[in-house]
Amino acid sequence: METTTNGNKISDATVRRLSKYYRSLKYAYDRGMRTISSQELADMNNLTAAQVRKDLSFFGAFGRRGLGYYVADLQRNIARILGINRTWNVALIGAGNIGRALIDFDQFRQQGFIIKAVFDNDMAKVGNIYHGIEVKNFADIEEEAKKLKIKIAIIAVPAQYAQSIVDRLIESKIRAILNFAPITIQVPEGVFVRNENMAIEIEALSFALTNRREVYRTISG
Amino acid sequence: METTTNGNKISDATVRRLSKYYRSLKYAYDRGMRTISSQELADMNNLTAAQVRKDLSFFGAFGRRGLGYYVADLQRNIARILGINRTWNVALIGAGNIGRALIDFDQFRQQGFIIKAVFDNDMAKVGNIYHGIEVKNFADIEEEAKKLKIKIAIIAVPAQYAQSIVDRLIESKIRAILNFAPITIQVPEGVFVRNENMAIEIEALSFALTNRREVYRTISG
Repeated sequence: METTTNGNKISDATVRRLSKYYRSLKYAYDRGMRTISSQELADMNNLTAAQVRKDLSFFGAFGRRGLGYYVADLQRNIARILGINRTWNVALIGAGNIGRALIDFDQFRQQGFIIKAVFDNDMAKVGNIYHGIEVKNFADIEEEAKKLKIKIAIIAVPAQYAQSIVDRLIESKIRAILNFAPITIQVPEGVFVRNENMAIEIEALSFALTNRREVYRTISG
Repeated sequence: METTTNGNKISDATVRRLSKYYRSLKYAYDRGMRTISSQELADMNNLTAAQVRKDLSFFGAFGRRGLGYYVADLQRNIARILGINRTWNVALIGAGNIGRALIDFDQFRQQGFIIKAVFDNDMAKVGNIYHGIEVKNFADIEEEAKKLKIKIAIIAVPAQYAQSIVDRLIESKIRAILNFAPITIQVPEGVFVRNENMAIEIEALSFALTNRREVYRTISG
Protein backbone atom coordinates (compact mmCIF):
# COMPACT_ATOMS: atom_id res chain seq x y z
CA MET A 1 0.00 0.00 0.00
CA GLU A 2 1.15 3.48 -0.69
CA THR A 3 -0.76 6.64 0.00
CA THR A 4 0.13 10.30 -0.37
CA THR A 5 -0.16 12.79 2.46
CA ASN A 6 1.26 16.29 2.29
CA GLY A 7 2.61 15.28 -1.10
CA ASN A 8 4.61 12.37 0.34
CA LYS A 9 4.10 8.70 -0.33
CA ILE A 10 3.16 6.77 2.79
CA SER A 11 4.30 3.16 2.62
CA ASP A 12 2.54 0.19 4.02
CA ALA A 13 5.46 -0.18 6.44
CA THR A 14 4.91 3.37 7.76
CA VAL A 15 1.22 2.69 8.40
CA ARG A 16 2.15 -0.52 10.21
CA ARG A 17 4.62 1.38 12.39
CA LEU A 18 2.00 4.04 13.19
CA SER A 19 -0.16 1.24 14.59
CA LYS A 20 2.77 0.15 16.73
CA TYR A 21 3.46 3.70 17.96
CA TYR A 22 -0.20 3.99 18.88
CA ARG A 23 0.11 0.89 21.07
CA SER A 24 3.37 2.09 22.61
CA LEU A 25 1.79 5.44 23.48
CA LYS A 26 -1.18 3.73 25.11
CA TYR A 27 1.22 1.54 27.09
CA ALA A 28 3.30 4.58 28.12
CA TYR A 29 0.23 6.61 29.11
CA ASP A 30 -1.17 3.76 31.21
CA ARG A 31 2.15 3.75 33.07
CA GLY A 32 1.98 7.46 33.86
CA MET A 33 4.25 8.89 31.15
CA ARG A 34 3.00 12.24 29.86
CA THR A 35 5.83 13.03 27.41
CA ILE A 36 7.93 10.66 25.36
CA SER A 37 11.02 11.08 23.18
CA SER A 38 11.45 9.65 19.69
CA GLN A 39 14.27 7.56 21.19
CA GLU A 40 11.92 6.06 23.78
CA LEU A 41 9.32 5.30 21.11
CA ALA A 42 12.07 3.79 18.97
CA ASP A 43 13.37 1.59 21.80
CA MET A 44 9.88 0.23 22.45
CA ASN A 45 9.67 -0.92 18.83
CA ASN A 46 13.24 -1.95 17.99
CA LEU A 47 13.61 1.00 15.62
CA THR A 48 15.84 4.06 15.37
CA ALA A 49 14.80 7.49 16.63
CA ALA A 50 15.39 8.83 13.11
CA GLN A 51 12.83 6.36 11.72
CA VAL A 52 10.25 7.41 14.30
CA ARG A 53 10.77 11.12 13.55
CA LYS A 54 10.58 10.49 9.81
CA ASP A 55 7.35 8.48 10.09
CA LEU A 56 5.67 11.13 12.23
CA SER A 57 6.92 13.99 10.08
CA PHE A 58 4.72 12.87 7.17
CA PHE A 59 1.69 13.94 9.14
CA GLY A 60 2.83 17.18 10.72
CA ALA A 61 5.14 18.50 13.41
CA PHE A 62 3.95 16.83 16.59
CA GLY A 63 7.14 16.99 18.63
CA ARG A 64 8.78 19.79 20.61
CA ARG A 65 12.54 20.07 20.55
CA GLY A 66 14.08 18.99 23.84
CA LEU A 67 10.74 17.86 25.24
CA GLY A 68 9.63 15.16 22.83
CA TYR A 69 5.99 14.41 22.22
CA TYR A 70 2.99 14.83 24.49
CA VAL A 71 1.82 11.22 24.84
CA ALA A 72 -1.93 11.90 24.82
CA ASP A 73 -1.70 14.39 21.93
CA LEU A 74 0.35 12.10 19.76
CA GLN A 75 -1.89 9.15 20.53
CA ARG A 76 -4.95 11.19 19.53
CA ASN A 77 -3.28 12.38 16.33
CA ILE A 78 -2.26 8.88 15.30
CA ALA A 79 -5.77 7.60 16.06
CA ARG A 80 -7.14 10.25 13.70
CA ILE A 81 -4.62 9.38 10.98
CA LEU A 82 -5.38 5.67 11.25
CA GLY A 83 -9.11 6.29 11.34
CA ILE A 84 -9.50 4.60 14.72
CA ASN A 85 -10.93 7.66 16.46
CA ARG A 86 -14.35 6.30 15.45
CA THR A 87 -16.05 2.93 15.12
CA TRP A 88 -16.31 0.79 11.97
CA ASN A 89 -19.06 -1.72 11.36
CA VAL A 90 -17.57 -5.03 10.33
CA ALA A 91 -19.07 -8.18 8.78
CA LEU A 92 -17.35 -11.47 9.45
CA ILE A 93 -17.72 -14.04 6.67
CA GLY A 94 -17.28 -17.63 7.81
CA ALA A 95 -18.33 -19.13 11.14
CA GLY A 96 -15.64 -21.84 11.28
CA ASN A 97 -12.87 -22.11 13.87
CA ILE A 98 -10.96 -19.00 12.92
CA GLY A 99 -14.15 -17.01 12.42
CA ARG A 100 -15.52 -17.98 15.82
CA ALA A 101 -12.21 -17.09 17.51
CA LEU A 102 -12.29 -13.69 15.82
CA ILE A 103 -15.80 -12.93 17.08
CA ASP A 104 -14.46 -12.91 20.60
CA PHE A 105 -11.17 -11.21 19.76
CA ASP A 106 -11.19 -8.21 22.08
CA GLN A 107 -8.57 -6.27 20.16
CA PHE A 108 -10.84 -5.60 17.21
CA ARG A 109 -13.57 -4.30 19.46
CA GLN A 110 -11.18 -2.23 21.56
CA GLN A 111 -9.88 -0.46 18.46
CA GLY A 112 -13.41 0.32 17.32
CA PHE A 113 -13.90 -2.51 14.80
CA ILE A 114 -17.33 -3.81 15.74
CA ILE A 115 -18.44 -7.14 14.29
CA LYS A 116 -22.13 -6.55 13.63
CA ALA A 117 -22.95 -9.91 12.04
CA VAL A 118 -21.42 -13.20 10.95
CA PHE A 119 -22.34 -14.68 7.58
CA ASP A 120 -22.11 -18.28 6.47
CA ASN A 121 -23.70 -20.35 3.72
CA ASP A 122 -23.94 -23.45 5.92
CA MET A 123 -27.60 -23.53 6.87
CA ALA A 124 -26.73 -25.64 9.92
CA LYS A 125 -24.93 -22.58 11.30
CA VAL A 126 -27.33 -19.84 10.17
CA GLY A 127 -29.40 -18.64 13.13
CA ASN A 128 -26.83 -19.71 15.73
CA ILE A 129 -25.56 -17.12 18.16
CA TYR A 130 -21.81 -17.02 18.89
CA HIS A 131 -20.70 -14.70 21.69
CA GLY A 132 -23.87 -12.68 21.17
CA ILE A 133 -23.50 -12.32 17.38
CA GLU A 134 -26.05 -13.95 15.09
CA VAL A 135 -24.98 -16.03 12.10
CA LYS A 136 -26.85 -14.81 9.03
CA ASN A 137 -27.25 -16.33 5.57
CA PHE A 138 -24.50 -15.14 3.23
CA ALA A 139 -27.09 -15.02 0.44
CA ASP A 140 -28.52 -11.93 2.21
CA ILE A 141 -25.18 -10.10 2.44
CA GLU A 142 -26.05 -7.23 0.09
CA GLU A 143 -29.25 -6.29 1.94
CA GLU A 144 -27.71 -6.86 5.39
CA ALA A 145 -24.52 -4.93 4.60
CA LYS A 146 -26.63 -1.93 3.63
CA LYS A 147 -28.89 -2.23 6.66
CA LEU A 148 -25.99 -2.69 9.11
CA LYS A 149 -23.81 -0.02 7.43
CA ILE A 150 -20.94 -2.49 6.99
CA LYS A 151 -17.69 -0.83 5.88
CA ILE A 152 -15.18 -3.66 6.34
CA ALA A 153 -15.50 -7.41 5.81
CA ILE A 154 -13.32 -10.07 7.39
CA ILE A 155 -13.05 -13.24 5.31
CA ALA A 156 -12.43 -16.46 7.25
CA VAL A 157 -13.46 -19.09 4.70
CA PRO A 158 -11.63 -21.90 2.87
CA ALA A 159 -9.43 -20.75 -0.03
CA GLN A 160 -11.64 -22.15 -2.79
CA TYR A 161 -14.59 -19.95 -1.78
CA ALA A 162 -12.69 -16.75 -1.10
CA GLN A 163 -12.71 -15.12 -4.56
CA SER A 164 -16.42 -15.64 -5.25
CA ILE A 165 -17.24 -14.30 -1.79
CA VAL A 166 -15.07 -11.26 -2.41
CA ASP A 167 -16.81 -10.64 -5.75
CA ARG A 168 -20.15 -10.70 -3.94
CA LEU A 169 -18.86 -8.35 -1.22
CA ILE A 170 -17.75 -5.88 -3.85
CA GLU A 171 -21.21 -6.04 -5.46
CA SER A 172 -22.50 -5.30 -1.96
CA LYS A 173 -20.44 -2.05 -1.97
CA ILE A 174 -17.90 -3.20 0.62
CA ARG A 175 -14.56 -1.54 -0.11
CA ALA A 176 -12.23 -2.93 2.55
CA ILE A 177 -11.44 -6.60 3.15
CA LEU A 178 -9.31 -8.34 5.74
CA ASN A 179 -8.57 -11.72 4.21
CA PHE A 180 -7.72 -14.78 6.32
CA ALA A 181 -8.16 -17.20 3.40
CA PRO A 182 -4.79 -18.55 2.23
CA ILE A 183 -5.06 -17.19 -1.31
CA THR A 184 -4.37 -13.92 -3.11
CA ILE A 185 -7.72 -12.40 -3.98
CA GLN A 186 -8.24 -10.13 -6.97
CA VAL A 187 -10.06 -6.84 -6.44
CA PRO A 188 -10.71 -3.84 -8.67
CA GLU A 189 -9.07 -0.45 -8.19
CA GLY A 190 -10.48 1.33 -5.15
CA VAL A 191 -11.01 -1.78 -3.05
CA PHE A 192 -8.54 -2.29 -0.20
CA VAL A 193 -7.33 -5.70 0.85
CA ARG A 194 -5.08 -6.82 3.70
CA ASN A 195 -4.07 -10.44 3.92
CA GLU A 196 -3.67 -12.22 7.25
CA ASN A 197 -1.64 -15.28 6.56
CA MET A 198 -0.58 -16.80 9.82
CA ALA A 199 1.40 -19.56 8.13
CA ILE A 200 3.50 -16.95 6.30
CA GLU A 201 4.64 -15.43 9.58
CA ILE A 202 5.69 -18.77 11.02
CA GLU A 203 7.61 -19.54 7.81
CA ALA A 204 9.79 -16.50 8.50
CA LEU A 205 10.78 -18.33 11.69
CA SER A 206 11.62 -21.61 9.96
CA PHE A 207 13.58 -19.56 7.42
CA ALA A 208 15.50 -17.86 10.25
CA LEU A 209 16.21 -21.15 12.05
CA THR A 210 17.25 -22.81 8.79
CA ASN A 211 19.52 -19.98 7.71
CA ARG A 212 20.65 -19.24 11.24
CA ARG A 213 24.33 -18.86 10.43
CA GLU A 214 23.45 -16.30 7.82
CA VAL A 215 21.04 -14.30 9.95
CA TYR A 216 23.09 -11.48 11.35
CA ARG A 217 20.63 -9.75 13.56
CA THR A 218 17.59 -10.56 15.65
CA ILE A 219 14.44 -10.31 13.61
CA SER A 220 11.36 -8.60 14.81
CA GLY A 221 8.40 -8.19 12.47
CA MET B 1 14.62 -9.23 9.51
CA GLU B 2 17.57 -9.29 7.23
CA THR B 3 19.70 -12.28 6.40
CA THR B 4 22.61 -12.77 4.06
CA THR B 5 22.72 -15.46 1.39
CA ASN B 6 25.35 -15.56 -1.33
CA GLY B 7 26.64 -12.35 0.19
CA ASN B 8 23.32 -10.53 -0.33
CA LYS B 9 21.00 -9.21 2.32
CA ILE B 10 17.62 -10.90 2.29
CA SER B 11 14.90 -8.61 3.58
CA ASP B 12 11.89 -9.61 5.58
CA ALA B 13 9.78 -8.59 2.59
CA THR B 14 11.66 -11.00 0.33
CA VAL B 15 11.08 -13.90 2.73
CA ARG B 16 7.41 -12.99 2.89
CA ARG B 17 7.21 -13.00 -0.93
CA LEU B 18 8.94 -16.39 -1.09
CA SER B 19 6.12 -17.76 1.06
CA LYS B 20 3.65 -16.30 -1.40
CA TYR B 21 5.46 -17.73 -4.43
CA TYR B 22 5.44 -21.11 -2.72
CA ARG B 23 1.66 -20.94 -2.43
CA SER B 24 1.25 -19.75 -6.01
CA LEU B 25 3.38 -22.64 -7.27
CA LYS B 26 1.31 -25.13 -5.30
CA TYR B 27 -1.86 -23.60 -6.73
CA ALA B 28 -0.41 -23.70 -10.28
CA TYR B 29 0.77 -27.29 -9.93
CA ASP B 30 -2.59 -28.43 -8.61
CA ARG B 31 -4.13 -26.92 -11.76
CA GLY B 32 -1.82 -28.84 -14.07
CA MET B 33 0.83 -26.19 -14.84
CA ARG B 34 4.31 -27.67 -15.14
CA THR B 35 6.23 -24.50 -16.11
CA ILE B 36 5.56 -20.93 -15.06
CA SER B 37 6.99 -17.56 -16.10
CA SER B 38 8.12 -14.82 -13.75
CA GLN B 39 5.30 -12.72 -15.25
CA GLU B 40 2.70 -15.34 -14.31
CA LEU B 41 4.10 -15.59 -10.77
CA ALA B 42 4.08 -11.80 -10.60
CA ASP B 43 0.47 -11.55 -11.79
CA MET B 44 -0.66 -14.04 -9.14
CA ASN B 45 0.82 -11.81 -6.43
CA ASN B 46 0.25 -8.28 -7.71
CA LEU B 47 3.98 -7.81 -8.28
CA THR B 48 6.25 -7.10 -11.24
CA ALA B 49 8.13 -9.84 -13.09
CA ALA B 50 11.37 -7.97 -12.31
CA GLN B 51 10.63 -8.25 -8.57
CA VAL B 52 10.01 -11.99 -8.86
CA ARG B 53 13.25 -12.55 -10.79
CA LYS B 54 15.21 -10.43 -8.32
CA ASP B 55 13.81 -12.29 -5.28
CA LEU B 56 14.60 -15.70 -6.77
CA SER B 57 18.04 -14.65 -7.99
CA PHE B 58 19.27 -14.33 -4.38
CA PHE B 59 19.10 -18.08 -4.06
CA GLY B 60 20.42 -19.26 -7.41
CA ALA B 61 19.44 -19.45 -11.07
CA PHE B 62 16.25 -21.46 -11.10
CA GLY B 63 14.76 -20.20 -14.35
CA ARG B 64 15.46 -21.06 -17.98
CA ARG B 65 15.35 -18.28 -20.53
CA GLY B 66 12.27 -18.50 -22.73
CA LEU B 67 10.83 -21.36 -20.70
CA GLY B 68 10.44 -19.91 -17.24
CA TYR B 69 10.60 -22.06 -14.14
CA TYR B 70 9.74 -25.71 -13.63
CA VAL B 71 6.89 -25.47 -11.13
CA ALA B 72 7.79 -28.55 -9.07
CA ASP B 73 11.51 -27.71 -9.00
CA LEU B 74 10.98 -24.16 -7.92
CA GLN B 75 8.45 -25.19 -5.29
CA ARG B 76 10.95 -27.70 -3.87
CA ASN B 77 13.75 -25.14 -3.89
CA ILE B 78 11.67 -22.53 -2.09
CA ALA B 79 10.53 -25.12 0.46
CA ARG B 80 14.19 -25.87 1.19
CA ILE B 81 15.06 -22.16 1.49
CA LEU B 82 12.13 -21.52 3.84
CA GLY B 83 12.91 -24.63 5.88
CA ILE B 84 9.48 -26.13 5.21
CA ASN B 85 10.82 -29.29 3.55
CA ARG B 86 10.76 -30.82 7.05
CA THR B 87 8.57 -30.69 10.14
CA TRP B 88 9.01 -28.42 13.15
CA ASN B 89 7.75 -29.25 16.62
CA VAL B 90 5.77 -26.36 18.00
CA ALA B 91 4.51 -25.50 21.49
CA LEU B 92 1.42 -23.34 21.79
CA ILE B 93 1.30 -21.19 24.92
CA GLY B 94 -2.21 -20.16 25.96
CA ALA B 95 -5.38 -22.21 25.64
CA GLY B 96 -7.78 -19.27 25.28
CA ASN B 97 -9.93 -18.49 22.24
CA ILE B 98 -7.13 -17.65 19.84
CA GLY B 99 -5.01 -20.51 21.09
CA ARG B 100 -7.80 -23.04 20.67
CA ALA B 101 -8.53 -21.79 17.14
CA LEU B 102 -4.85 -22.16 16.27
CA ILE B 103 -4.76 -25.77 17.45
CA ASP B 104 -7.14 -26.67 14.67
CA PHE B 105 -5.62 -24.35 12.08
CA ASP B 106 -4.83 -26.73 9.22
CA GLN B 107 -2.38 -24.42 7.52
CA PHE B 108 0.25 -24.77 10.22
CA ARG B 109 0.07 -28.55 10.08
CA GLN B 110 0.05 -28.63 6.27
CA GLN B 111 3.27 -26.61 6.16
CA GLY B 112 4.92 -28.94 8.65
CA PHE B 113 4.44 -26.91 11.84
CA ILE B 114 3.18 -29.55 14.26
CA ILE B 115 1.68 -28.38 17.55
CA LYS B 116 2.91 -31.05 19.97
CA ALA B 117 1.47 -29.57 23.16
CA VAL B 118 -0.48 -26.62 24.54
CA PHE B 119 0.65 -24.96 27.75
CA ASP B 120 -1.39 -22.88 30.15
CA ASN B 121 -1.04 -21.82 33.77
CA ASP B 122 -4.79 -22.05 34.41
CA MET B 123 -5.12 -25.30 36.31
CA ALA B 124 -8.77 -25.54 35.23
CA LYS B 125 -7.50 -26.03 31.67
CA VAL B 126 -4.46 -28.24 32.36
CA GLY B 127 -5.26 -31.84 31.46
CA ASN B 128 -7.99 -30.91 28.98
CA ILE B 129 -7.70 -32.22 25.42
CA TYR B 130 -8.46 -29.82 22.55
CA HIS B 131 -8.60 -31.36 19.07
CA GLY B 132 -6.45 -34.20 20.33
CA ILE B 133 -3.77 -32.00 21.93
CA GLU B 134 -3.30 -32.09 25.70
CA VAL B 135 -3.04 -28.91 27.75
CA LYS B 136 0.04 -29.09 29.96
CA ASN B 137 1.15 -26.99 32.89
CA PHE B 138 3.31 -24.07 31.76
CA ALA B 139 5.43 -24.59 34.88
CA ASP B 140 6.77 -27.74 33.18
CA ILE B 141 7.72 -26.01 29.91
CA GLU B 142 11.47 -26.45 30.20
CA GLU B 143 11.31 -30.20 30.75
CA GLU B 144 8.51 -30.70 28.20
CA ALA B 145 10.19 -28.57 25.53
CA LYS B 146 13.27 -30.72 25.79
CA LYS B 147 11.32 -33.98 25.76
CA LEU B 148 9.12 -32.94 22.82
CA LYS B 149 12.02 -31.34 20.87
CA ILE B 150 10.16 -28.03 20.60
CA LYS B 151 11.83 -25.58 18.19
CA ILE B 152 9.15 -22.90 17.86
CA ALA B 153 6.67 -21.48 20.37
CA ILE B 154 3.44 -19.70 19.54
CA ILE B 155 2.34 -17.22 22.20
CA ALA B 156 -1.39 -16.62 22.50
CA VAL B 157 -1.66 -15.07 25.94
CA PRO B 158 -2.79 -11.67 27.29
CA ALA B 159 -0.26 -8.84 26.81
CA GLN B 160 0.66 -8.53 30.48
CA TYR B 161 1.96 -12.11 30.66
CA ALA B 162 3.78 -12.20 27.33
CA GLN B 163 7.23 -10.94 28.34
CA SER B 164 7.63 -13.19 31.40
CA ILE B 165 6.49 -16.18 29.32
CA VAL B 166 9.00 -15.30 26.61
CA ASP B 167 11.78 -15.04 29.21
CA ARG B 168 10.89 -18.53 30.43
CA LEU B 169 10.80 -19.89 26.85
CA ILE B 170 14.28 -18.52 26.24
CA GLU B 171 15.50 -20.21 29.43
CA SER B 172 13.95 -23.37 27.96
CA LYS B 173 16.21 -22.98 24.90
CA ILE B 174 13.44 -22.03 22.45
CA ARG B 175 14.87 -19.71 19.80
CA ALA B 176 11.84 -18.88 17.61
CA ILE B 177 8.62 -17.26 18.75
CA LEU B 178 5.43 -16.40 16.92
CA ASN B 179 3.78 -13.79 19.11
CA PHE B 180 0.02 -13.16 19.05
CA ALA B 181 0.10 -11.05 22.22
CA PRO B 182 -0.48 -7.37 21.40
CA ILE B 183 2.85 -6.16 22.77
CA THR B 184 6.43 -5.86 21.53
CA ILE B 185 8.47 -8.46 23.33
CA GLN B 186 12.16 -8.08 24.06
CA VAL B 187 14.49 -10.93 23.19
CA PRO B 188 18.28 -11.31 23.20
CA GLU B 189 20.39 -11.59 20.05
CA GLY B 190 19.90 -14.94 18.34
CA VAL B 191 16.23 -15.34 19.23
CA PHE B 192 13.79 -14.83 16.36
CA VAL B 193 10.38 -13.23 16.86
CA ARG B 194 7.51 -12.66 14.46
CA ASN B 195 4.51 -10.70 15.64
CA GLU B 196 0.99 -11.54 14.55
CA ASN B 197 -1.10 -8.52 15.28
CA MET B 198 -4.46 -8.92 13.66
CA ALA B 199 -5.64 -5.52 14.80
CA ILE B 200 -2.69 -3.87 13.02
CA GLU B 201 -3.76 -5.33 9.70
CA ILE B 202 -7.32 -4.09 10.05
CA GLU B 203 -6.00 -0.63 10.95
CA ALA B 204 -4.36 -0.46 7.53
CA LEU B 205 -7.90 -0.75 6.16
CA SER B 206 -9.35 2.01 8.31
CA PHE B 207 -6.34 4.11 7.31
CA ALA B 208 -7.06 3.45 3.63
CA LEU B 209 -10.78 4.20 3.98
CA THR B 210 -10.03 7.36 5.98
CA ASN B 211 -7.40 8.64 3.56
CA ARG B 212 -9.21 7.34 0.52
CA ARG B 213 -8.74 10.43 -1.61
CA GLU B 214 -5.02 10.21 -1.00
CA VAL B 215 -4.67 6.51 -1.70
CA TYR B 216 -3.60 6.27 -5.30
CA ARG B 217 -3.52 2.58 -5.84
CA THR B 218 -5.19 -0.54 -4.55
CA ILE B 219 -3.40 -1.91 -1.54
CA SER B 220 -2.59 -5.52 -1.16
CA GLY B 221 -0.55 -6.68 1.81
